[in-house]
Amino acid sequence: MPNFSAPSLEDLAQRILQAMGLAPDDAAWLARLLVKSNLQGHDSHGVARMPQYYQMWRRGGVNPAAKPLIIQEGPVTAVMDGQMGFGQLVARDAMRLCIEKARGGGMAGVGFHNFTHLGRLADFAEMALEHSMLGFLFVGGRSADQWVAPWGGRAGRLSTNPLAFAAPAAECTPISIDYATSAVPEGVVRLKKLRGEKTPPRTLIDADGHPTDDPSVLYASPRGSILPFGGHKGYALSLMVEILACLLGRSGERLAVASVNQSRFGAFAMAIDVSRFAPADEFRKEVDSLIRHVKSSPPAPGFEEVLTPGEPEARQEQKLQAEGIPLEDETWSRIREVAAELSVEIF
Amino acid sequence: MPNFSAPSLEDLAQRILQAMGLAPDDAAWLARLLVKSNLQGHDSHGVARMPQYYQMWRRGGVNPAAKPLIIQEGPVTAVMDGQMGFGQLVARDAMRLCIEKARGGGMAGVGFHNFTHLGRLADFAEMALEHSMLGFLFVGGRSADQWVAPWGGRAGRLSTNPLAFAAPAAECTPISIDYATSAVPEGVVRLKKLRGEKTPPRTLIDADGHPTDDPSVLYASPRGSILPFGGHKGYALSLMVEILACLLGRSGERLAVASVNQSRFGAFAMAIDVSRFAPADEFRKEVDSLIRHVKSSPPAPGFEEVLTPGEPEARQEQKLQAEGIPLEDETWSRIREVAAELSVEIF
Repeated sequence: MPNFSAPSLEDLAQRILQAMGLAPDDAAWLARLLVKSNLQGHDSHGVARMPQYYQMWRRGGVNPAAKPLIIQEGPVTAVMDGQMGFGQLVARDAMRLCIEKARGGGMAGVGFHNFTHLGRLADFAEMALEHSMLGFLFVGGRSADQWVAPWGGRAGRLSTNPLAFAAPAAECTPISIDYATSAVPEGVVRLKKLRGEKTPPRTLIDADGHPTDDPSVLYASPRGSILPFGGHKGYALSLMVEILACLLGRSGERLAVASVNQSRFGAFAMAIDVSRFAPADEFRKEVDSLIRHVKSSPPAPGFEEVLTPGEPEARQEQKLQAEGIPLEDETWSRIREVAAELSVEIF
Repeated sequence: MPNFSAPSLEDLAQRILQAMGLAPDDAAWLARLLVKSNLQGHDSHGVARMPQYYQMWRRGGVNPAAKPLIIQEGPVTAVMDGQMGFGQLVARDAMRLCIEKARGGGMAGVGFHNFTHLGRLADFAEMALEHSMLGFLFVGGRSADQWVAPWGGRAGRLSTNPLAFAAPAAECTPISIDYATSAVPEGVVRLKKLRGEKTPPRTLIDADGHPTDDPSVLYASPRGSILPFGGHKGYALSLMVEILACLLGRSGERLAVASVNQSRFGAFAMAIDVSRFAPADEFRKEVDSLIRHVKSSPPAPGFEEVLTPGEPEARQEQKLQAEGIPLEDETWSRIREVAAELSVEIF
């Protein structure tokens, strides 16, 4: 497998994105997030997405120069139409607006819609950290693929409706949560099927609602479903995410407008300025103290230590910054093809 | 078992609470919430709490005439010191302030501390509904009994850190979520132990971190722990609740003040005015449409239908409004004792 330094991969990704019509700042932001996903061990959201983004761009499924439009605005709230821009850019703009409004008012929320795949949610929640704010992001897919069955049901009615939350620390790694409210993201089931592997218990049901460990049920006809994580509690959380993301984000109203180029996703970003509640330095120290407190628990059998959300990613990033990012041969060859088609030099 | 109409039980509870020094409005509010818990099938938070509240009041553990104090305030944020008032009254005041600020700004958050047991969280999140707002409540117990082990750990480090969320509907029963981020509340384990029953899988570990179905491990020495619900995802959610409730609610700073009469809980209430994002009527209809959509899933084996959070409570309330509330003999006899000690006539 070829191995790349993060800066060189980021530079290549940026040049490819600029060749697709992104402004230099936008291309740099998107390239940085893709490479950061690789660094943090989430290859599914890394540079392997480039060929997919390129195909989407070629068929006109994304507007690389989109300027998100604020369609409704209050002192600490807004609704933004992403104008079918890259999800990473629309979410960045929504979160920036949210942070700006939270700086003025103390907290703020921005709903948004009309954007493409936005990558890892954590990246946007974490934008709040340097401002000593708590950051939140909720993403729902209203009429998108409904892989997830409601609790007690046997047919898919919900998307994997992920959420992210980040809290600033003083010396410790900040808390950074990012997960699907389904037992697993759909991509994990797809990968298990490709590899001929079984899925873990409490992940899937077949079309009759019976538990199964066979990932192929999700692509059979009639189709099986992914379960919410944690039973009825995860189901409830998924409904909350759907209401925040799709209803506050107003993804719904666009469904009436028939257009192949409009996405089916909605999102809600939120920021809370901790200094409106306690001195920010003290707050950060309290987060440290909470982190140290939970980490002081002796590990359970099968675990080496207690980790906090965001810690595995931070460790992996430190490791790969030093060692370089390995890419699968096929991923690398597909990126080279895209570069060639766009007449972008490899290095 | 004796059986009571909701109004008669509410009237009795109100008169007992007034005899303990609560203002008529406060006593009526608290009595209504206790009886509502019975009506909705949550007897653990119903009038059976009265004798416990009476004992707490007798030993000076609650101030029945407390006036919560706003100790920090911004346009859409506040921190409130509950002055060791009844949790149901402090949470009501915090949520009222939150709703008032959200009406002005579009959304708001109020952290609070120094209150006693506050009953069902859903009651406060639901206060937002008539204002066409989304309501949230997060409660954390900073140095309270740490029943819950972090994911990957084998020692208790977190409280059961519950959360509540409510969303207004048009014709359907509103969405109302209220649950502990632990696999079960501690009270359920205690009851199982009393009844000689086993706990379900993935609920408890013993002091060595091994899974067990024996509820007595939670009260053994060294002590076992309750697991977070849904593995690492519930653990992450518990940390989020702790940060919102205890750090924004500033339960921490009081820990330095040594006083037996100060509680160890913190809470964070939040309200979002949906009309800042979409016309409120349309929003309510969209919630209806989401509810009908998930309920349209055929049931899985072992289920009769798909329910939404809040539906079981609404059905039980309708049933018991008609049939009356049955109380266990012991509960009723203890309430009679309290009434006698306070010279309150039974009916």
